[in-house]
Order: sequence, then structure tokens, then C-alpha cells
Amino acid sequence: MTPERYRRLRDVLDKRQPDLTVLMENVHKPHNLSAILRTADAVGVYEAHAVNPTGGVPTFHDTSGGSEKWVYLRVHPNVDEAVAHLKERGFTVYAANLSERALDYREVDYTLPSAVLLGAEKWGVSPRAAELADADVVIPMMGMVQSLNVSVAAAVILFEAQRQRLASGLYDRPRLDPLTYRRTLFEWAYP
Amino acid sequence: MTPERYRRLRDVLDKRQPDLTVLMENVHKPHNLSAILRTADAVGVYEAHAVNPTGGVPTFHDTSGGSEKWVYLRVHPNVDEAVAHLKERGFTVYAANLSERALDYREVDYTLPSAVLLGAEKWGVSPRAAELADADVVIPMMGMVQSLNVSVAAAVILFEAQRQRLASGLYDRPRLDPLTYRRTLFEWAYP
Ligand SMILES: C[S@@+](CC[C@H](N)C(=O)[O-])C[C@H]1O[C@@H](n2cnc3c(N)ncnc32)[C@H](O)[C@@H]1O
Ligand SMILES: C[S@@+](CC[C@H](N)C(=O)[O-])C[C@H]1O[C@@H](n2cnc3c(N)ncnc32)[C@H](O)[C@@H]1O
Repeated sequence: MTPERYRRLRDVLDKRQPDLTVLMENVHKPHNLSAILRTADAVGVYEAHAVNPTGGVPTFHDTSGGSEKWVYLRVHPNVDEAVAHLKERGFTVYAANLSERALDYREVDYTLPSAVLLGAEKWGVSPRAAELADADVVIPMMGMVQSLNVSVAAAVILFEAQRQRLASGLYDRPRLDPLTYRRTLFEWAYP
Repeated sequence: MTPERYRRLRDVLDKRQPDLTVLMENVHKPHNLSAILRTADAVGVYEAHAVNPTGGVPTFHDTSGGSEKWVYLRVHPNVDEAVAHLKERGFTVYAANLSERALDYREVDYTLPSAVLLGAEKWGVSPRAAELADADVVIPMMGMVQSLNVSVAAAVILFEAQRQRLASGLYDRPRLDPLTYRRTLFEWAYP
């Protein structure tokens, strides 16, 4: 562990946002899962969430850029438990969902604790997940195609959250509690 | 061709932006190419560009959502010819490139004619392409991973362009010249 490396780990931990996350509902293509975790890392997500009904361990693609080492992934048995977990921790859950009731994704305040729920490649957000979410958000589309790739949709929303959080200074000082900070630094430094 | 379908084709053509595009330099994974075209369609790109040094016809992934039917893709033999083509048509070329000189992507005015140049999955933007581009833009990253997935980077920049163009009314009335509009409507309606 060089001093430069240690400094870099601290710089990244100083910017981690414990109150910003994603919940992937049955996103199953490894390249999508990897791209989402890579984006999550870039905007400072500390821990991501997934619902994986097969109960299997998600696999990562060789193009993840190593993000699975830096963003914890908590796998929940079903969407009810996943959303309950997030709500207990104070998150508002926004389903990225092409529904009638959806708000424009740019209208939401992501400086408050926010979880972005993403649906499966083929089927989208399940009816049960949409029912559990606090609100739906949609990215306006002006073309012929009906939906965006799921990792693209995740990124567009998460970088809007990054923009808002940059503007309100949320990356300017450490946001993790001291215990989590020290424990994570130790895990990252001595894996 | 139902009247609804015809109306939908016109609605989409009414929003096409002839002065916003992407140039993909050796982006070769079909799922990335498809995701980028799907995003391009959603923000109103009329024609996208690619440099494909193998000279082969790019292949599309089954997850393109059919975008290759709605966004024309012009393949150039090399990056010099691609950039020359764009500059002759008045585009400013922004290389999405993690360089020292890069501007924050949010600082650029994409309501002016803009082409976003994207680099290959492994190697990024080539030195020659970076030399030809008018400026580099970078998406700020606060994590451990060095770069985003290329289709994610494309989307984050293109949806910033969409935001700016929505705000300045560029989607409010048709932007294609009448001849291109009629020709395209005909091609789309009677393929
Ligand atoms: C390929 S889409 C699923 C398409 C599915 N046929 C549907 O209608 O929901 C996969 C996921 O990406 C996200 N997504 C795609 N396009 C979106 C958009 N324009 N706005 C919000 N979320 C979007 C949603 O979470 C969606 O469940
Ligand atoms: C996976 S990256 C290439 C990584 C390559 N090792 C490099 O250093 O450029 C593929 C392409 O995505 C785009 N890209 C990825 N992350 C970006 C970022 N943070 N800002 C701007 N463009 C980015 C660039 O066009 C890049 O060439």
C-alpha cells in the first residue's frame, strides 16, 4: 500500500453518499449489472441493492472495470423485502418506470435520501415493485423506440443526482459515519 | 399504415435534430452500439456516425429496440474523413475523453451544432481523433473505477444536450429541411 494509494482510497471514501442508491429488480444481463455498478461507483453510491429471485449470486462481466470491488451489493430475496429495507433506512424509492403517473426525472430532489429502482431488461418494473415505490420517474424520450437500455436509464438519473449533490455541496465533506468509514477503509486497504 | 401510426411518425420527425449527433470511433460491442443508437433516437438524433476500420457492416444486437431502423448510421472509412464530414457541415466535435484538457461536459452549449465523439471500449478515443476534435469533455467521476461504460457516457452527455435543447425550444417545431422531412417520412411509412 503506497501512500498515494491510501490517499486515493480516502479521497473516494470522503465522497461516498450513504443516502443515494439503486435497486435493480431482476436486471440479469451481466454487462448491464456491471455498467450500473460502474456508474454507481462514479456518483459515490456506497452500497447498491438487487433483487435476484433465483437466489443465485450475481455474476459480473469482464467489463465492470472492477466496480464490484468498490460498491457493495446487497442481494434481497424479493422486492418487498428490498423496499422495506430501504424505507426503514429513510430512503424514498423512485421507480424508473414508463407509467402514466411518472414524474419527469429532473423534477425530483435527489439530495434527500433516494433509491432508484430499475426494472428488468424485458419486462420492466414489476407491478408489485411499482406499487411499493413512492413515485415513478421517467426520462423523456422523443423517438420511435419505447425504452432505453436499463444501464443507460440508471446513468441518466444517477448523474442528475450527482449534479444536484455537487451543487449542494454533498461531496465536500465525508458523509459516511466514522465507524463505517474506518471499517471500509480497512477492507479496501487490506483485502 | 393506420392514421395513428402516421401521426406518430410525424411527431417523431417533428422533433428530429439535424444538428446533434454522435461519432463512434471503433465502438465494437454490439450491445454498446445498440444502446447508443437507442439513446440517440430518444434525444432526436437524425443520423449517427461511426468509424469502422474493418470496413465491415456493423451488426446490431437483439436489444437495440429497433433503433437501427430509425436512426441513420453513416459509416466512415477513418476518423479523419468522419471529422472532416462533420466539420464541413458546421458541427463542433466534442471528444468524450478523460484528458487533462477536458471541460466538464455540463459546461458546453449543445444547442449549437454538436457531435459527441466516443472512443472504443478498451482504448478510448485515439490520439488522432483527440487531435481532430475541437474540445474534450469529461463526465466527473468520484469513485475508484477509471471510466464509464461507453454507452453510459454517450447517454449522460446526450441527455444533457436534450435538457438544454428542451429549455431553448429546439423540440418545439420541425428542424429538418422540408425535403429531408418528406423523404424520411416516406421511407419510414413505406419501408
Ligand atoms: C428496457 S427497459 C424495460 C422495458 C419494458 N418493456 C417496460 O415497458 O418497462 C428496462 C428498465 O430501464 C428503465 N428505463 C428504460 N427507459 C426508461 C425511461 N425512458 N425512463 C425511465 N426508466 C427507463 C426502467 O427501469 C425499465 O424497467
Ligand atoms: C470504457 S471508456 C475507454 C477507457 C479507456 N481506457 C480510456 O482511458 O479512455 C470508452 C469511452 O467511453 C467514454 N467515456 C467513459 N467514461 C467517460 C467519462 N467519465 N467522461 C467522458 N467520456 C467517458 C469515452 O468516449 C471513452 O473513450
